[in-house]
Amino acid sequence: MDNIKALTFRNDELKLTDLKKPEPNNNEVLIEVSLAGICNTDLEIMSGMLGFTGIPGHEFVGKVVDDPRNKLSGKRVVGEVNIPCYNCERCRRRHFRHCLNIKALGMRGRDGAFAEYLTLPRENIHLVPETVSDREAVFVEPIAAAVEIAEQYHLKPSEEIAILGDGKLGLIIARTLKALGYSVLVIGRHESKLARLKSLKIPGYLERNLPKNIQDIPVVVEVTGSSSGLERALQLVRPEGKVIFKTTIARKIEVNLSILAIDEIQLLGSRCGPFPPALNLLKDNNFYLEELITDCYPLEKGPEALEKARDKVNLKVLLQP
Amino acid sequence: MDNIKALTFRNDELKLTDLKKPEPNNNEVLIEVSLAGICNTDLEIMSGMLGFTGIPGHEFVGKVVDDPRNKLSGKRVVGEVNIPCYNCERCRRRHFRHCLNIKALGMRGRDGAFAEYLTLPRENIHLVPETVSDREAVFVEPIAAAVEIAEQYHLKPSEEIAILGDGKLGLIIARTLKALGYSVLVIGRHESKLARLKSLKIPGYLERNLPKNIQDIPVVVEVTGSSSGLERALQLVRPEGKVIFKTTIARKIEVNLSILAIDEIQLLGSRCGPFPPALNLLKDNNFYLEELITDCYPLEKGPEALEKARDKVNLKVLLQP
Repeated sequence: MDNIKALTFRNDELKLTDLKKPEPNNNEVLIEVSLAGICNTDLEIMSGMLGFTGIPGHEFVGKVVDDPRNKLSGKRVVGEVNIPCYNCERCRRRHFRHCLNIKALGMRGRDGAFAEYLTLPRENIHLVPETVSDREAVFVEPIAAAVEIAEQYHLKPSEEIAILGDGKLGLIIARTLKALGYSVLVIGRHESKLARLKSLKIPGYLERNLPKNIQDIPVVVEVTGSSSGLERALQLVRPEGKVIFKTTIARKIEVNLSILAIDEIQLLGSRCGPFPPALNLLKDNNFYLEELITDCYPLEKGPEALEKARDKVNLKVLLQP
Repeated sequence: MDNIKALTFRNDELKLTDLKKPEPNNNEVLIEVSLAGICNTDLEIMSGMLGFTGIPGHEFVGKVVDDPRNKLSGKRVVGEVNIPCYNCERCRRRHFRHCLNIKALGMRGRDGAFAEYLTLPRENIHLVPETVSDREAVFVEPIAAAVEIAEQYHLKPSEEIAILGDGKLGLIIARTLKALGYSVLVIGRHESKLARLKSLKIPGYLERNLPKNIQDIPVVVEVTGSSSGLERALQLVRPEGKVIFKTTIARKIEVNLSILAIDEIQLLGSRCGPFPPALNLLKDNNFYLEELITDCYPLEKGPEALEKARDKVNLKVLLQP
């Protein structure tokens, strides 16, 4: 009765396992996972690149089934990924997001969402508005990562933003920056993915057919996930322009950066973002997120689902515990 | 009578040549060069990396000997390096500094300062205050490049700035940011160069003896000129910190940039800067620039002077036409 099903990654293998149901401590809540999304970081974890063992998965929507303080029980929620220690030197400087001992749901030192149940600290939890469906709410984490760009850096309404990369995150960033009122375009390699921009009237261009006037771009978001993406972004951006860097590849890349100094380009790293504005945007805008869902698998078919997610022609693959 | 001596770089060789004295057009002035400085970019030119042929040299102080409009004749001056076309698409957007057809004194399409005389457009010229000596004024160009950092980016008085690299430009940036009121330190590899910080009470640290508390630095200026400098800067800077990128190496470097996204670091390109604030700083502060001058050669000994400048134990080498 107190066992749960979960996908566990250990010894380079992802397996369906029976585990003891986690118990929330006094600062945590227990969540029954309704849906979880597979992100490229999960695929990197499966390749052993981040050294994580345990239950992966950090994009989810679920229902609070046990809150020791009782306030959240029964609520439909999403949860932020990072769990600071509140104790290290950086936390003492209130730099919680970059805690030296940070744990991250399904990524670092903390079991994640590819399971029937998970626990999270209460302060990580956000309520999902009624009008936002589970199949939308499961995208809150990557939408927050897109919001983070505008949270960190001053983007001017007058400046066009080119998103370089038509993968899952690229298409989500396009939707999010558009919802934030910016003028965006996407440059990609897959006609079928760029087609998912039409409902939102966002222009999408195939890299091999790029019109000549797409150059000297004020802001380029590098989200190709490939090692050649940065050099391409540096070609596309205008002098004194911004390249927002979302690609995390756990290996060295070869790049000529002299153009960065000569053209005084700003290369700006960007990672996870705040959930509340992401939820607000999702409540107030149609993100056409159904267009980004390739498939939904039961937890039992986890390895198959990850195979599907790994194929670059596909977009978001969900798991339903 | 109308011939001048100049160092000319052609076919991978720097030679003393006799050339026709340049004649200023109506928008230009003719300057008799008093002193010229050798910069690392000049050394790159000598390696053929920038594809420049002609008279190198872009750091100078001199005297106007012919001004067709007569206003500047007899004045002691320095001159900005970049000459925009005022005609291309970027110039039409008033983005002169990044003109598509830009010419640059001694670097691109325009003869430079390793000569008895040079011409420059009148708008590039700035008067040297009386109290600033020639041996100080010859440093205005690199001081302006240091000022540019604060011109481009918001540096907070509360945030310590570490300068990574104890070469000529590193030591000049340290002096300039100190004169601008910032708290700076320098990390280098040469005890003899770091010693040139003592007069200004700027702390200098040998890379191999770096105290453990020199970490999580808010702002790191990468001015090593080496291909490993960037990775080191990314280790030293704190999350959400700034790395100012001054190194221009005309080749690819291998670097793991995932830390840039994960730690949300800003990598900020920086190049030439404005002369007026540089001249003001020089007028109001003792930069102890004599400490940075290794030697001064007559123009005839140009090749020898460049050899001296190439040796990493040396600092600024001057040419006196």
